[in-house]
Amino acid sequence: MSSTKYDVLGIGNAIFDVLVKTDEAFLAQQQMTKGSMALIDEARAASIYDAMGPATTMSGGSAANTIVGVAGFGARAAYVGKVKNDEIGRLYTHDIRAAQVAFDTPPASDGPATGCSYILVTPDGERTMNTYLGAAQDLTPADIDAEQIAAAGIVYLEGYLWDPASAKQAFLKASEIAHGAGRKVALTLSDSFCVDRYRDEFLDLMRKGTVDIVFANESELHSLYQTADFDTALGALRKDIGFGVVTRSEKGCIVATKDGVTPVPASPIKELVDTTGAGDLFAAGFLFGLVRGASHTDAGRLGALAAAEVIQHVGARPQVSLKQLAQDRGLPV
Amino acid sequence: MSSTKYDVLGIGNAIFDVLVKTDEAFLAQQQMTKGSMALIDEARAASIYDAMGPATTMSGGSAANTIVGVAGFGARAAYVGKVKNDEIGRLYTHDIRAAQVAFDTPPASDGPATGCSYILVTPDGERTMNTYLGAAQDLTPADIDAEQIAAAGIVYLEGYLWDPASAKQAFLKASEIAHGAGRKVALTLSDSFCVDRYRDEFLDLMRKGTVDIVFANESELHSLYQTADFDTALGALRKDIGFGVVTRSEKGCIVATKDGVTPVPASPIKELVDTTGAGDLFAAGFLFGLVRGASHTDAGRLGALAAAEVIQHVGARPQVSLKQLAQDRGLPV
Repeated sequence: MSSTKYDVLGIGNAIFDVLVKTDEAFLAQQQMTKGSMALIDEARAASIYDAMGPATTMSGGSAANTIVGVAGFGARAAYVGKVKNDEIGRLYTHDIRAAQVAFDTPPASDGPATGCSYILVTPDGERTMNTYLGAAQDLTPADIDAEQIAAAGIVYLEGYLWDPASAKQAFLKASEIAHGAGRKVALTLSDSFCVDRYRDEFLDLMRKGTVDIVFANESELHSLYQTADFDTALGALRKDIGFGVVTRSEKGCIVATKDGVTPVPASPIKELVDTTGAGDLFAAGFLFGLVRGASHTDAGRLGALAAAEVIQHVGARPQVSLKQLAQDRGLPV
Repeated sequence: MSSTKYDVLGIGNAIFDVLVKTDEAFLAQQQMTKGSMALIDEARAASIYDAMGPATTMSGGSAANTIVGVAGFGARAAYVGKVKNDEIGRLYTHDIRAAQVAFDTPPASDGPATGCSYILVTPDGERTMNTYLGAAQDLTPADIDAEQIAAAGIVYLEGYLWDPASAKQAFLKASEIAHGAGRKVALTLSDSFCVDRYRDEFLDLMRKGTVDIVFANESELHSLYQTADFDTALGALRKDIGFGVVTRSEKGCIVATKDGVTPVPASPIKELVDTTGAGDLFAAGFLFGLVRGASHTDAGRLGALAAAEVIQHVGARPQVSLKQLAQDRGLPV
């Protein structure tokens, strides 16, 4: 197996986040399902934006957040995702490159605007996302550079990629190239409603070995196996995939392999401000741990540390050096 | 005097803030003067942006921040400022209207892009601003609606308006209309380097009664009177203007009138995160106090409260209800 140019390469929907603090009444009035990611069209996007308060904006996108986190720990990282060549797309491109992530996907020169997500954060810190995919719909297999994919130790894909029609093909192409080069492919299930939309296909990806590692939170796991019983769902996961990581918010995570199950506690926090990016940053720390050859426990701790950082401020991108944070805690970097 | 439609109307440079946490070395390398606002051209803007890290973006602009704060306390507020009809300009327009501020200045359809400020925040919480005025350069007297100005109890102007050539004329026109309608005109001196650029003109505005109330921080006051002695500067201010408010960071503020000098303490904070908007939000609280007929001490407390809120998070717009905050402290709202 040749040496790698990147430790982790992520592929995802490139989405600009428009974050606003709101109350439960607004979610009810807008008929939003709290905690979920809903896909919205342009008209609905305009209607939500009109109704919502002043926003803080920043680059987002699930896999992009993860990859920025991986780079923040000091690993070599790359991202593939589609923006438009518009003002927001240029902000997006700046932010991911400024985070030391290689990002070379050509922006769309026409078609819909750079995608964005209207993220409502309630006083309990929970986030509810409304995503207009925009230019992210136009990610195609042509955006997958075989040489770049083959040069990445781990290819990380988000389940949300199943939403835009052609991105799914890009996903499958990337997985094939990665495996052909002897690399690993990781997938996050993204959202319980996303799992509900693509349950059979996701199970297929796992059972056929298209993906080697799966990240899921509890509600995604329950949705995947359509059971309310955690142990039943975890058992089913262990049959379907050699390496699963299940996050359980303040209860920490469980690393589940054929050999056994390792629980890892969550990292303590002072104040929960905004859960946006919690799962994304957990995956960042965990993947970084894998890259460095850390134990499952230490990988889980790195994930918990990054998740704890991101939920204590508004937005899904880390505000401090994750490398420094890990060093301060005596974790491997 | 007819009744008012707005309690406070602000006029300023409409600027989109691009905030990034950085270190002292970056400021040194970029030859920036810490704590100042430097005007930059498009080429310098591109060069700083290329060099700086991933950003958090949100609407800003000094007078706009103040006006959003005034509205946040529950007063009737309006803003006049120039953006372009581009993506950033539309974000800007959304944010100020969503804050319940009347904003009707027609956006520019051609010319430079919506203005932005690259704001570097160092670990000590100090902010250093680099402002590309963009479309804000094109605010002209034609953007001043006489009827709207005359309907505002207080017209609030920022010293930064002296930078774009035609905005100065808009400023003078607004002051004349306001005084013709029996209203008050307030001015913030904005920045010590701005004072240095326009010292004589600012003194003229005060001495000729073009403005009735002046807000300044210590360094602006020292710059205005070119003295390092605070009491000398304060004495000079009291001769030049009937109503001056001097902010002194953690030492609180001083309300200086012909009748006397009232010191008001600062509001306690848990953690200084980012001073961006501190002076703007102080002015918001103080102006709101004046509008409500509060004592100078209570107006100072309202200012201190709003400033304390805004310096404990990234960005210059309040993240909580200032009205609620004031109610919780037993201050008049």
